[in-house]
Parts: sequence; structure tokens; C-alpha cells
Amino acid sequence: MYHAPLKELGFVLHQLIDDGQLEGLPGLAEYSPEFADSVLQEAAKFAEQVLDPINVLGDQEGAKWTPDGVRMPPAFKEAYRQFVAGGWPQLRATQEYGGQGAPTVLGTAVEELWGSANLAFKLCPMLTQAVIEAIHRCGTSRQKDLYLPRLIRGEWTGTMNLTEPQAGSDLGAIRMRAIPEGDSFRLHGQKIFITYGEHDYTPNIIHMVLARIEGAPAGIKGISMFIVPRVLVGADGSLGEPNDVRCVSIEHKLGIHSSPTCVLSYGEKAGAVGYLVGEPNRGLEYMFIMMNAARLSVGLEGYALSERAYQHALAYARERVQGRPAQATAPVRDKPLPIVFHADIKRMLLAMKSQTEAARAVALYGALQLDLGRYHPDAATRAAAQARGDLLIPIIKAWATEMGVQSASLGVQVHGGMGFIEETGAAQYYRDVRITTIYEGTTGIQANDLVGRKVGRDGGTAMGALIADMLEELRREAPSDSAGDRSAALAAVELLKEATAKVLEFTGRGPEHVQAIAVPYLMLSGYAIGAWLMARAQSQAAGRIDEDRGFYSGKLQTTRFFLQHALHEVRAQAAIVTGGGGAVVEADPDLF
Amino acid sequence: MYHAPLKELGFVLHQLIDDGQLEGLPGLAEYSPEFADSVLQEAAKFAEQVLDPINVLGDQEGAKWTPDGVRMPPAFKEAYRQFVAGGWPQLRATQEYGGQGAPTVLGTAVEELWGSANLAFKLCPMLTQAVIEAIHRCGTSRQKDLYLPRLIRGEWTGTMNLTEPQAGSDLGAIRMRAIPEGDSFRLHGQKIFITYGEHDYTPNIIHMVLARIEGAPAGIKGISMFIVPRVLVGADGSLGEPNDVRCVSIEHKLGIHSSPTCVLSYGEKAGAVGYLVGEPNRGLEYMFIMMNAARLSVGLEGYALSERAYQHALAYARERVQGRPAQATAPVRDKPLPIVFHADIKRMLLAMKSQTEAARAVALYGALQLDLGRYHPDAATRAAAQARGDLLIPIIKAWATEMGVQSASLGVQVHGGMGFIEETGAAQYYRDVRITTIYEGTTGIQANDLVGRKVGRDGGTAMGALIADMLEELRREAPSDSAGDRSAALAAVELLKEATAKVLEFTGRGPEHVQAIAVPYLMLSGYAIGAWLMARAQSQAAGRIDEDRGFYSGKLQTTRFFLQHALHEVRAQAAIVTGGGGAVVEADPDLF
Repeated sequence: MYHAPLKELGFVLHQLIDDGQLEGLPGLAEYSPEFADSVLQEAAKFAEQVLDPINVLGDQEGAKWTPDGVRMPPAFKEAYRQFVAGGWPQLRATQEYGGQGAPTVLGTAVEELWGSANLAFKLCPMLTQAVIEAIHRCGTSRQKDLYLPRLIRGEWTGTMNLTEPQAGSDLGAIRMRAIPEGDSFRLHGQKIFITYGEHDYTPNIIHMVLARIEGAPAGIKGISMFIVPRVLVGADGSLGEPNDVRCVSIEHKLGIHSSPTCVLSYGEKAGAVGYLVGEPNRGLEYMFIMMNAARLSVGLEGYALSERAYQHALAYARERVQGRPAQATAPVRDKPLPIVFHADIKRMLLAMKSQTEAARAVALYGALQLDLGRYHPDAATRAAAQARGDLLIPIIKAWATEMGVQSASLGVQVHGGMGFIEETGAAQYYRDVRITTIYEGTTGIQANDLVGRKVGRDGGTAMGALIADMLEELRREAPSDSAGDRSAALAAVELLKEATAKVLEFTGRGPEHVQAIAVPYLMLSGYAIGAWLMARAQSQAAGRIDEDRGFYSGKLQTTRFFLQHALHEVRAQAAIVTGGGGAVVEADPDLF
Repeated sequence: MYHAPLKELGFVLHQLIDDGQLEGLPGLAEYSPEFADSVLQEAAKFAEQVLDPINVLGDQEGAKWTPDGVRMPPAFKEAYRQFVAGGWPQLRATQEYGGQGAPTVLGTAVEELWGSANLAFKLCPMLTQAVIEAIHRCGTSRQKDLYLPRLIRGEWTGTMNLTEPQAGSDLGAIRMRAIPEGDSFRLHGQKIFITYGEHDYTPNIIHMVLARIEGAPAGIKGISMFIVPRVLVGADGSLGEPNDVRCVSIEHKLGIHSSPTCVLSYGEKAGAVGYLVGEPNRGLEYMFIMMNAARLSVGLEGYALSERAYQHALAYARERVQGRPAQATAPVRDKPLPIVFHADIKRMLLAMKSQTEAARAVALYGALQLDLGRYHPDAATRAAAQARGDLLIPIIKAWATEMGVQSASLGVQVHGGMGFIEETGAAQYYRDVRITTIYEGTTGIQANDLVGRKVGRDGGTAMGALIADMLEELRREAPSDSAGDRSAALAAVELLKEATAKVLEFTGRGPEHVQAIAVPYLMLSGYAIGAWLMARAQSQAAGRIDEDRGFYSGKLQTTRFFLQHALHEVRAQAAIVTGGGGAVVEADPDLF
């Protein structure tokens, strides 16, 4: 049974990253920490009472393809109905079109609960939110008026259509054709891996489709974005004839079985009617608006599943009696005890919990930067915060999901043999989480984005500013650092600084050199930034221990464990980065 | 399509670990490197042509429980028939009862091929071999005469029955009762997680069952071992009435779907007839004979699946065209190329391949020690080799399987989105391999065995002797060490030495302290010992490069990558070990 970690979320939001900074900012007039708490309490109820109970059922039943369309498990349809009735699709959407305009940081906190309780369900509103964002930022006012209110009310959902069989990470290879016809276009081609590309939650689905207008330049500079509704929409928003788009099949996947992953065929008849978004040939740029939001949201899936796997493993470890632990903390030494008292079980649980907390801290800090980048009245502050948020997105996406995979695997391990039995439930997280390091850009793609567009392009300015802030804070005297934990965080950030200098140096040698060490660099960035925030959390917990001894003592345990381990991880990865990727660059694929 | 790595196996056996040492030893008169090669060639054919083609089918169909028994996929029955016809069950079995008496090192090399091609299939002969070993070493001559020839011919198969619902890692909690009745016993109780506890390959199955004779002492000192045939056997070996044992159900598992994991109910009627093996109350000791053999064999499953996942990922990376690699080694720069030329794909493939090679080297080295421990004419050499083999078993079991899990996960990642689609095949390895760090003792159990029974009990003698040998070899001048790879291996082994001293120090402080750092210590042991053998492989490859430029250049690539990365891993884990497990020991489970 899932329990939303409300106390932890309150701690991170209000104390660790200080969401009070957003209070009273123009455009966020209604936001306050108290408002966030009340939203999170309602979200917790929905996650615990509606989404969590159908998670296993969703895994077992899955979405089903039929010639008449994709059929979702009825319990999922009902959950979606309640999701809409509860007003959840509105949370982050613009107030101009009926949304509540909540900041990204609150949206991120809430989405964690959806992700923990039911990842397959969570993907539908995530993509709809991305479509809302894209139409709001790039669409015509007619498009906004027509689509946004219905998407924001959750009456319709949205999808991103990028991938084609020959065009995965390389979007320049997209072939889908768009032929002008009056004010609109006719689209022909096939898209694959379309999450929630078909379902029976809602009578319409708004596909955001990348395609080439006839005669457009080759490569990424010839790609445009189109709105292609599943069912054609009249000027008054009424539904007309079905559009010429069909779900040919859905994938049989390792996990997230109730998230239909569709092959969509456009234009088998006269061509699917599509409406250009923004200017021609700027589709990729617009798609990245959606992508960035989605990448942050996938990053949170990493720790959302880690949290869920942790709770599940902890419950088992407290219940399963096996062996006489050697552990000094065991209350009784002479009879079998729950395995939570075994040293190695504790080690695994601490690893899972501390990784979850560190990733959550970095993700919510990053989300807050995006809000400051959007709403802060001072232009320079806005620009710096936006740059910092953009810098953090690939780190959050890749580092948090890689740790999520590790954590779900540890969750299986804590269960021993029972972990391998599907009915236990631990295996589902191990299967579900495995997509998170892949979709919306693999870990390798995120790492190349980090070393290329985020660090290389500005010569390390945004990363340098973050490192300077972290060093300044960590060099200040801590209330107590008897175990040297704060020094460990400081050492980790200093290694990040050295590694960043190396990345910039390698950038000059050519992309192959920097790409060969990009993933190790990204991972150490995550650990170092995580260590900075965990050191801050440790100081705050030490200072407030009398306010809530249970919670803050727990926080001291996880921060201590994380800080002692993170530095070793950072050292190992930094050694790989500074050593250069020679063993990779010079390796000849013919000799594999 | 799986290709048995025959050249690599020949290199490891004949050059790297020098199996020539076994030639002419008493009891191994027929063994020679040439003999090993001819066996491996035949095994390769069987693995590639019979086992590999049905691996996916086995995953999809799985074993099926019916009221009349467990039904295997017909293709698996046929494969088993061919396995027996080919004489494979005889390979490692004692010549006294019709086996071929091949050494453990050859058996281990051959079993890798079964594991890579079809893990679910491989488990049946693995357990039968363990039963053969146990009856041969502990049974009466009557038991040997009756059971061994049929087990060795593969006419019957065998199982290990340890686990009960309340007795997993803690075998002292076993409750199954054995009531004396004349020369035999009547057994009552339930066993779970019994691999191949029921199937329709053969007309009989010999269960080796742990149970308590009425009135036996509590805990592990009151456990005896029994032979319980599924079908009762006449004095002439003829099959009689079914015994009172029934497969109640089989588990629905994450992977290895065609390996039936059974719940066996004994004695629902008059009691299952069982025959005591050896002396009463020494069952656990006998079971460990089986367990040790099985642990080595599970260890090889880790790199067997890593090899399979690597081959699969490499084939995809060579075929999948996507993007313009930045890689200098790419033959053409101006058009899309296979992703094998992307730096990060190369990095992942090198990680998979080098881990596989290092684990294989350590496992075959360990297996060779067991053979020297059994067959060497000099008693002192035998004792030292046996101690070294015993020391290495938990390291091979846990380190190789943990790396197998990592490697299979990387295999999914190399495939990108396709990796998450079941039809691609990469996901099966990710699912199948997940059991290997659990069964036959979890990684935590192996680590406790290592720090307790293997290092703590002899005060570090066996480990110290291995470290001394490794240091002596690594300090000798290498033909060339321009990249410092040999120095890296030396540094890794020196860190293992320091960490071992710490383990002995912590042993004095109480088991909780040493168990808290046991897994990090085990992992660094694996990397350090792997680094030693990979450094040796590098020297040999450099010296022989003209003999086979393709193979040895590839070996130089993987050894270089491994040595550069292993040291960083060892450093990280050694820092955790020497830092002590304070953050774990002092963590209070109530605060989780």
C-alpha cells in the first residue's frame, strides 16, 4: 500500500529549497506553501485511494488493441473520469484558458505521487500537459481557443508524435509528409512509440505531429509541427468525422502495460487533416518545449518508482522474519527477527531511501528554477534561473532514472526469492522503471545534451555559477560536521568543478572525446548536486531535530549514508572523466 | 542468434589460466586442452542449434501446471531428449558410475554455453549434477548403485529441496518432519521454490530433501538429508507406485518461465517415503556440497547472460542506423551510420564485454582451483587450491551475477526504445538474469560467507595467499604498460589487501560491523581479482598479437577498458569498506 510522503515533500519544498520565494510573484499570486500543502494532501488521497489500488490490475490486464480502437482496463477509465472530476488536469495549466496556473515545482511534487502510485496512468496527463504547453506557447489564438479549454478540462488528451521506424534519437530522419490543402495540410506516414496514441478515456485525442511540408529542407531544419485531432473538430469545438489516423497495433512491453504504446498510421485514405503550429520548419524547436517539460517529468518517475519500491521493500523487510540478525540495534538477540534488522538489508534500504531523497531534492530544486525563470520580476534573475533549470533538466532526467533502475533492482533483492515472483509486486517496479532511462531521450542523449548544449555551448557559465553557489554554501561553517559529511559534499562539488573543466577541455578536442565521458560526467554531476542539497538537509535536520524527532532523525540517517557514499561515486566517475575516454574513443567497433 | 565464444574460451582455458596443469593428473588421465576443445566444439553446436532456437519460445510458453503434473513446452522435452542422447549429463559425473569425469573447469566452460543459450533449460542438468555429487559423496553404496547410473545417463533428474515458507536464507527454521519406519522414513511438509521439482522430461525425479527426524535438535544441527524419489524405485531400479509427493503449484515469475519453480507437498497421505543420506543431523553439511557446486554454476550464469545480452546488443548496434556519429573511427562522416560508432554505445558495449570477460576469467580460474584441490598429487597443493577455490566461490557467485544484472540492463539500453519491447529479446535477459543474484544464496548471503567463513575464519590466510600471488605477478615488469593499466591492476589488488585487513579488524568488533561492509568488500574483491587476470590477459594478448590480430586486438581493447574502470570501482568500494559501516550499523530501522 502506497503512502504519499507528504512530510518529506513539505520539508523539501518549504525548508530545503524554499518555495516561499515564489510567494507573491506576478503570475503566481495564489501560490503559497500552505496552498501547496493543501493540494498535496488532496493529491495524496487520489494517489493512495484511486491510482494505487489499480496499479497491479493495470499491469496484469494491460491496454488491449481491438479493430475498433484501444480498450483500457475499465478501472483505468473510471480513474481517469475521477481524475478529471477532481480537476487535476487543470493544476499546471494556464489560468487564461481555465487552468489553475500552479508552478512547475508544485506540479512536479504532485506528479511524483501519480508516478509512484501508477506510472502507466500518469503518462496520459503528462503528455496532455506537454501538449497544452506547446499549443499555449506556439499556437494561434484560434488554436488556443479551440483546443486548450478542452485539454485543460481533461475532456480530450494529447500526444507527442516524434518517432518513426527510421527516426528515433535522430529526428532529422523524419519522413512523414504534409501536403498543403487550403488552410490545412494532409499528413501521410507512420509514427511509432506513441504513448496513449489511442485509448477510450476521452472522445478525442490531440496529436502533435512532426512532419515535413513538401519541399522543405532535409534534416532537422525541414520539420514542422502539426495539430492532428483524432476526430475532426468543428469551429465550435463539436466533434465531426474521424480523421484519417488509425492505431495499427500496440506494443507488447516489459512494463507499463496499461500505457498503450501505439503505432499510428496517418493518411491511409485521403490524408490526415493537420493544422500547422507556428511557423513552418520550426517544429523541432517547438517540440523541445514539450520535451523539456516531459524530461523533467520522466526524471521524477525515476525517484517516484524508487520511493514506491522502497516502501514496498521496507514493508516486506519489517514483516518477513528470518534468521538472527547480528545487528546491535536489534531489540532482541536470541530469536528470529524481521530482516529489517539485518545489516545488509539495512544497507540496501538506506541506499534506496537516500537516493530517492537526493533525486527528489535535485528535481524540485530544478523545477523551482524553472518557475523563477518564468515568474521572477527581475530579468537577470529570470535568465540565470532559467539557465540553471535548463542545465539541470538532463541531469534530473538521466541521473534520477538511472538511480530509479538501481533502486527498483535493490527492491527486488530485499525480497529475496519472493522478489522474483510476480505476485509479490516488486518485479513490476523493476519492469516499469526500465523505460524511464530510455523514453524522452536516453541517458546517452541527456548526457550529450548536458556536455554539448548545456555546458559546452555557454563555456560552462551556468554550471560554473551553480558550482560557485554550492561551494560558497558548503564552505560556510556547518552547525556540526563531526562525521565529515559536509566536507564530503564539498569534496564532491570540487570534483565536479574539476570534471567540468575537463569537459570543456575535451570539447575542444572534438565531440567524440566529450561524448565518451558524457554519461560518467552526468552521473557525477547528479551525485555532487545531490550531495550539496543533502548536506543542506542534514544541517536543517540537525537544527530542527526537536521539532519532529522521528522525521529529522530519519533524515540524519539518510543524509549521512548518502553523503558518505556519494563522494565515492563522484570520485570514481570523476577519475573516469579526467582520465579521458581514450579506451572508448580508440576502440574499434570492428573488433567488438 | 547466439555464437558460442570458443576462441575466447580457448584463450582463457589454455593461456590465461593454463588448464595444461591438469594434464596427466591422477583421476584426470583423459583430460587435455585438445580434449576440452573438442568437447566445447560439440557443446557449441548443441547450444547454438538446439538450445538457443527455443529460448524465446520457452519464455513465451513457459512450463504449465496441470492436475496431472507439470507440462514442459514440447520443444524443451525434445531438447532434453537430445541432451541425453548426446551424453551431456555424463560429462562431469564420476567415471565409476558411467560418467566421463571431466574436471570442473571444463564443466564450467560448457555450462556457460547452456546458460547463454537457454538459462531455463540449463537449470535442470545443473541440479541433477548437484544431486549426483551429493549422492556420490554422501550416499551408501546401495544408494549409489541404484540412483547414480540413471541420474548420470539423464534418465532421471534431481532437485534440491531446502526452502520452506518460513525457512529461506535461514535453513535452521526448517520444519519438514521425517518419521522413521523400518529402513526408511515418512516425510511430511511443504517445500517451496523447488527448481524443476516437477516436469515431464523423465519418468522419475530424485528429490534431495532437508527434514528433521522426530526428536532431532532444534536449529541447523537437527537437519538431515533424504532421498525422496517422485516414483518409488524397486531394488532393480524398476519404477513402482508414485510416492506421496505432489506439485501443488508453480510460480508465476519475472523470468526463466520454462524452469518450473514448484511448491511440493510431501505426505498428504501416508507420508512420502524417504531414505536417509549419510548420518542423521548432518544434512546441512551435505547440502553445502551441492550448494557450492551450484553456486559456482549460478555465478557463471551471470556472465553467460551478460555474454548473450552483449551479443544481442552488438548485433543491434551494428544494424541500427541512426544519426551521424561524432566518432573518429567512423569510416564515413557525412551520412547516417550504425549506432555502434556512437561513443556512448561503444562505452556500453565495452562495459558489457569487458565485465563478461573478467567474470569468466575469475570463474574458470576458481573452477581450476577446485580441480587442483581434488586431483593434485601433492596434499599441500591440494589443500591450498581447495581453500582458494572455496574462497572464490562466493565472489564468483555474487560479483558475476551482479555484473550480469548490470550488463543485461545495459543491453536493454543499447537498444533504446526497442529494448523495452518484448519481441526484441533484450528484455528477456534483463528478466531472466534477475534471479541469479538471489537463488542459491543472495548476494548478501554470499558476502557474509566471504567475510565470515572464508576470510574471518582462517584469519585471512587463503585471501592473503591469493593477494600475495597477485601482487608478486603484477609487480613483475610487464612487456609494455604505457597506459598504466598494469599499475592500475596492482593498485586495485593493494586496495584489496588494505580492505581485507579492515575486514579482519571489523570482525573483532562484532558481526554487524563486518556484515555492513560485506557486499562492498565482495564487489571490490571481484573487481581486483578480475583486474589481476585481465592484466595477465593484456600481457599475453600483447605478446601474441601477431598470431591472431583480430582476436588479440579486441582483447587489448577490453582489458584496457576494464583495467581503467575496475580501479575506480575498487577505490569507491574500498573507501566504503575502510570507512566502516557506521552509517548502516547505527541506522535505526524504526526511523526508516
